[in-house]
Amino acid sequence: MRRKNSAFASNAEPLLDIETLRAQTPGCEKVIHFNNAGCGLPATPVLESMIDHLRLESEIGGYEAAAARAEQVAEFHIQTAALLNAAPRNIAFAGSATHAYANALSAIPFQPGDVVLTTRNDFISNQIAFLALRKRFGVRIVHAPDLPEGGVDVEAMAALMRGERPRLVAATQIPTNSGLIQPVAEIGRHCRELDLLYLVDACQSVGQLEVDVQEIGCDFLTATCRKFLRGPRATGFLYASDRVLEQGYEPLFIDMHGARWTSAEEYQPAATARRFEEWEMPYAAVIGSAEAVRYARDIGLPAIADRAARLSSDLRKLLAGLPNVRVLDHGARLGALVTIAIDGWEPEPFKKALDGRGVNSALSFREFAQYDFGVDKDVDWALRLSPHYYNTAAEVDAVVDVIRELTWTPLPARSRSSTTPGRTRR
Amino acid sequence: MRRKNSAFASNAEPLLDIETLRAQTPGCEKVIHFNNAGCGLPATPVLESMIDHLRLESEIGGYEAAAARAEQVAEFHIQTAALLNAAPRNIAFAGSATHAYANALSAIPFQPGDVVLTTRNDFISNQIAFLALRKRFGVRIVHAPDLPEGGVDVEAMAALMRGERPRLVAATQIPTNSGLIQPVAEIGRHCRELDLLYLVDACQSVGQLEVDVQEIGCDFLTATCRKFLRGPRATGFLYASDRVLEQGYEPLFIDMHGARWTSAEEYQPAATARRFEEWEMPYAAVIGSAEAVRYARDIGLPAIADRAARLSSDLRKLLAGLPNVRVLDHGARLGALVTIAIDGWEPEPFKKALDGRGVNSALSFREFAQYDFGVDKDVDWALRLSPHYYNTAAEVDAVVDVIRELTWTPLPARSRSSTTPGRTRR
Repeated sequence: MRRKNSAFASNAEPLLDIETLRAQTPGCEKVIHFNNAGCGLPATPVLESMIDHLRLESEIGGYEAAAARAEQVAEFHIQTAALLNAAPRNIAFAGSATHAYANALSAIPFQPGDVVLTTRNDFISNQIAFLALRKRFGVRIVHAPDLPEGGVDVEAMAALMRGERPRLVAATQIPTNSGLIQPVAEIGRHCRELDLLYLVDACQSVGQLEVDVQEIGCDFLTATCRKFLRGPRATGFLYASDRVLEQGYEPLFIDMHGARWTSAEEYQPAATARRFEEWEMPYAAVIGSAEAVRYARDIGLPAIADRAARLSSDLRKLLAGLPNVRVLDHGARLGALVTIAIDGWEPEPFKKALDGRGVNSALSFREFAQYDFGVDKDVDWALRLSPHYYNTAAEVDAVVDVIRELTWTPLPARSRSSTTPGRTRR
Repeated sequence: MRRKNSAFASNAEPLLDIETLRAQTPGCEKVIHFNNAGCGLPATPVLESMIDHLRLESEIGGYEAAAARAEQVAEFHIQTAALLNAAPRNIAFAGSATHAYANALSAIPFQPGDVVLTTRNDFISNQIAFLALRKRFGVRIVHAPDLPEGGVDVEAMAALMRGERPRLVAATQIPTNSGLIQPVAEIGRHCRELDLLYLVDACQSVGQLEVDVQEIGCDFLTATCRKFLRGPRATGFLYASDRVLEQGYEPLFIDMHGARWTSAEEYQPAATARRFEEWEMPYAAVIGSAEAVRYARDIGLPAIADRAARLSSDLRKLLAGLPNVRVLDHGARLGALVTIAIDGWEPEPFKKALDGRGVNSALSFREFAQYDFGVDKDVDWALRLSPHYYNTAAEVDAVVDVIRELTWTPLPARSRSSTTPGRTRR
């Protein structure tokens, strides 16, 4: 299946032909894309596979096109399984990581008093989902404490596992609002030892790091394809372990794809993770996702991880040297999300100034991270810069130059924060 | 906003310029598409709007493209609201009608013994969802009886409403497996009189008929865009009435788009139907859907409904005249889904034979309709033919000719049912 492509290095030789990879990425000509944690720039084969399928649908019909391209569609499960060290039967397509996450949660028949054990650095939508579960079913939400240097204290979390016997342990491998990489495999070892249900959000890590579900020891893992996998928007997946499939976990709302209506009074869930899928699928995007996963695997995750980490680390170091800029990421291990607080600016004008200089970035707000931003770091907002392997050292330098210029140059009063020393505290 | 297009008739003058409309539909050159109940053929403006957005995403980034096209994205809610006689605040985008349906169900905090009152002709996935709710929460499912001539007995259903005080009344306007049009507005009048929560599945009716949520009197209405609206795959919507929004119904799993995480311990759902949406959206498909709804509205739903009904009625009459063919649709009012049982054939070979002659169709099986097929009509499978306004009388004749030929001509033994008189009983 693997393409012969001079741009792709073998795992043993992590030197990527960046020029060729960039030539396969139309966006590289137009922007400095440091918003891969939002949405990666798709490579040409991904884009073209989608357009090709949409055209086929318009020519022969939507169902007919899906049938004609059944093999390409099946590649989604095959490629994603290979990416995660799982089997295709453990993979369910989802319209988003959040949808996959909700579907996994929905499979757990929570009772009043059940404990959800999580961390202080979990994705906002997951935290809102837990609060919604508390409202509806009366679950208790317990947050494991962090280490002083950042990141969850695994030993303290393990003690809570033993003490609380949580119905669910949930961790986000890389939260959306910082570069922190949480030790999900270490958490997983305790979950396996104690036989606890374990759900991992790998939305920001899949495509950026090697993610191995066997090593992590999770029961469910969710991710999107649009970020570091550089796939289409509104695509993602759920991994469900054989263990949970065999134990009969099924989503609360299962449909004619996930189950057979076997008699007026009965339905039979599928034996595989298919039970977590919906009948209707965005086939062009499913095919595009398969292509994106294959593309990443052809390049090789070790080489991708190495280069993304290197560029991000360089960016972080250079930004740390700027006055009026404070790097917010901390933790034992950091990934390709770089977050900074900027004194003297309001968020939107600052992002707009970057946009105007051809630099794509993102904003994170206190509301996205009530624990990390609201309590622990005490910031109202942060700028998030997220390079990927197809970015360059020259782009890192260019972005640092732009930020240096913006944070040093006097600016029109309307663009700057009206309340110096600004909304960014501490 | 309305285009000047000679192919579009005013509502007062329901004569469509079919030639122009077909020229705007690339698939019309390749196939006789009688599978609009599966997925309609998209018109060129729909296809091109999607491709255009995908290209923009690849050039400037996914988030950046969504921001640049915010107005086109907002058109989805505006157009869909106008289609349904609702306000944009009542519309939530969904990745499928089934997803929208599950989301609406998830908003109801079912308790053991709560009654779901439904009909014998509801969509399979809805029925499976009710069975799943029974399994998890112990709800009771009550099916209103049909009239002898087909379709639900509204008076009997109203008596059940009064007797059972159901937590939810649910009806499908047109089931996926027959041409039946259920009297959803008559049911709705009783729901409003008795102040009962009312959920309507309009998946097969939206884009085919005029669907007016005020006239129906529903609290929730779900539909897809891919069928008679001729929109992209994996798109749909949920209508939520002001009544349910004000009463605080919210989906079980609400995310950072549907709610704000206002403090570590609290979240605040959006005031509008946005609370039923997910943060991540397939923007190209959202834009394509908006375009499809606008396209349908520009043509005019009365003209569309009139022509689709006429072609289907002609098709039904001609097929009824063929030996070995039995038309299965019955009910006071029938739509553009024509279902037939065929003696002496297995389903897949028959559909394949149609495929080979350039006719797109679909198969329905007993498992898709345990009440309608399994109990009431006692058929194992049916062929479903679903023309739309852009089809022609000549195509109707051609399809009838093909079916006449297939059901009259002796065939190789392997293609025919081995157990004559066949699996199609009665």
